[in-house]
Amino acid sequence: MINRLCIIGVGLIGGSLARDLRRAGLVGEVVGTSRNASNLKRAVELGVIDRYDTNIAVALRGADMVVVAVPLGAMADVFLAIKGHLDDDAVVTDVGSAKGSVLSAAAEAFGGVPDFLVPAHPIAGTEHSGVDASFEGLFRNRMVIITPAPETRADALEKVRSMWQATGATTIEMCASHHDEVLAATSHLPHMLAYTLVDVLGRMEERVEIFRYAAGGFRDFTRIASSDPQMWHDICFANRDALLHALEHFRDDLDGAIEAIRRGDSEAIKSLFTRAKKLRDEYTKNG
Amino acid sequence: MINRLCIIGVGLIGGSLARDLRRAGLVGEVVGTSRNASNLKRAVELGVIDRYDTNIAVALRGADMVVVAVPLGAMADVFLAIKGHLDDDAVVTDVGSAKGSVLSAAAEAFGGVPDFLVPAHPIAGTEHSGVDASFEGLFRNRMVIITPAPETRADALEKVRSMWQATGATTIEMCASHHDEVLAATSHLPHMLAYTLVDVLGRMEERVEIFRYAAGGFRDFTRIASSDPQMWHDICFANRDALLHALEHFRDDLDGAIEAIRRGDSEAIKSLFTRAKKLRDEYTKNG
Repeated sequence: MINRLCIIGVGLIGGSLARDLRRAGLVGEVVGTSRNASNLKRAVELGVIDRYDTNIAVALRGADMVVVAVPLGAMADVFLAIKGHLDDDAVVTDVGSAKGSVLSAAAEAFGGVPDFLVPAHPIAGTEHSGVDASFEGLFRNRMVIITPAPETRADALEKVRSMWQATGATTIEMCASHHDEVLAATSHLPHMLAYTLVDVLGRMEERVEIFRYAAGGFRDFTRIASSDPQMWHDICFANRDALLHALEHFRDDLDGAIEAIRRGDSEAIKSLFTRAKKLRDEYTKNG
Repeated sequence: MINRLCIIGVGLIGGSLARDLRRAGLVGEVVGTSRNASNLKRAVELGVIDRYDTNIAVALRGADMVVVAVPLGAMADVFLAIKGHLDDDAVVTDVGSAKGSVLSAAAEAFGGVPDFLVPAHPIAGTEHSGVDASFEGLFRNRMVIITPAPETRADALEKVRSMWQATGATTIEMCASHHDEVLAATSHLPHMLAYTLVDVLGRMEERVEIFRYAAGGFRDFTRIASSDPQMWHDICFANRDALLHALEHFRDDLDGAIEAIRRGDSEAIKSLFTRAKKLRDEYTKNG
């Protein structure tokens, strides 16, 4: 049970979490904060939060759970802003898509990773953003990866775990660097490819017809290119090393495939497609 | 109105077309043919075709409309097999995803592009294949691109156009080479990227976790990697030049994006993502 929840950044993720916890009756009061007062007003109108304060120090008062749901690029500033204003029993967690950078930013702001910090990453979302896009049930049957640091207090970890489980999510734990490698591959790399593809097509001569005659497969394939550019910019730089590693791996394989097509290597292409289909079908069956 | 429709290759596309035409009462009899008798039996069981014959010459008898719905790699053999067995008034069309290669194969088999041939490409499908995956309505509100050759007879073109419009599709006409460039960009390139991505991830150390923690975005992004490998192999080689052109264009841009991330060029990445999101959002609005 959370007495007072403070959400810093009330968008798709922060808003959906607040909706779930309110509905489950697991939170006494929800206070929102950010620099954007009109967004916070909207969140009150939608019944996502009870009240807000654009002064972060005021918003934090009495909060026993603080969820930082801002783009990764704003994380360092938020940690500096909350320092010294947290209640003694406050637990702080975040929802960032890269975790190593969150730990570094926290260590820098607080002079070491604080024991009340529980970095976490709900693997859920849509290509839409903002509190208007938030909804109940976003996290149901989803994974939330929690990446505790050696410094993290056991009771803080348990409180964050319970909060996410209450939304219907499954929580698992791994170290931040492992998380960052896995997510670079499954999420950050695909976003780079989708954004790049749409941009390439947009600059082709046949641009208008390309988008006119694109089929459903193209729509699915490029859905993630409609995601928030600022958020994904921040993720790419926050997880730069792991993303570069995955990108280079992909580029090397793509070069190989291009060469195989150029030299008419039918077997290479057929076995590439066959392996990939088999893998994806297996993953879909279990997923 | 089609008196007797002969479908060569009764899979997702051929089967769905037959279902639509039967339901609309626009076809007297549907005869299926292919090398695979068990698939044809299944098509009869499902009510997709009235009867079948694995002897293509027999199956063609009395057909005034012949739809070639085999993988592109089998197109040349099918043209050779139907030569000399067509009724005088028969119109032949195909559903291949590349059109230049179909015209070349026909010209080779018939000693010039025959005036009864109307190459076409319904831009519709799913990642599933086979007659069991066929369904009524697959083509509703979809585009069918018809690429008539200079030799194509006007009445043959009109018959194919009417057939597709009866399924609820919109038909448009363009030349084969233009079609091939546009489809390389919107369809063949994305398939190459999806297959390559899944294959790359499948060979990473964290393979099991990668697929376990993949989110909905990844599932959408890789859906097309579950498509039939043989069919897509054939498409890649049938449309090799246009595909290589699109692939190289994409690879150059990806290289640029990788370099931008490496040198920390925040503006370049933000403007790439912003351009792409804007384009896709516009396309989705109109699409």
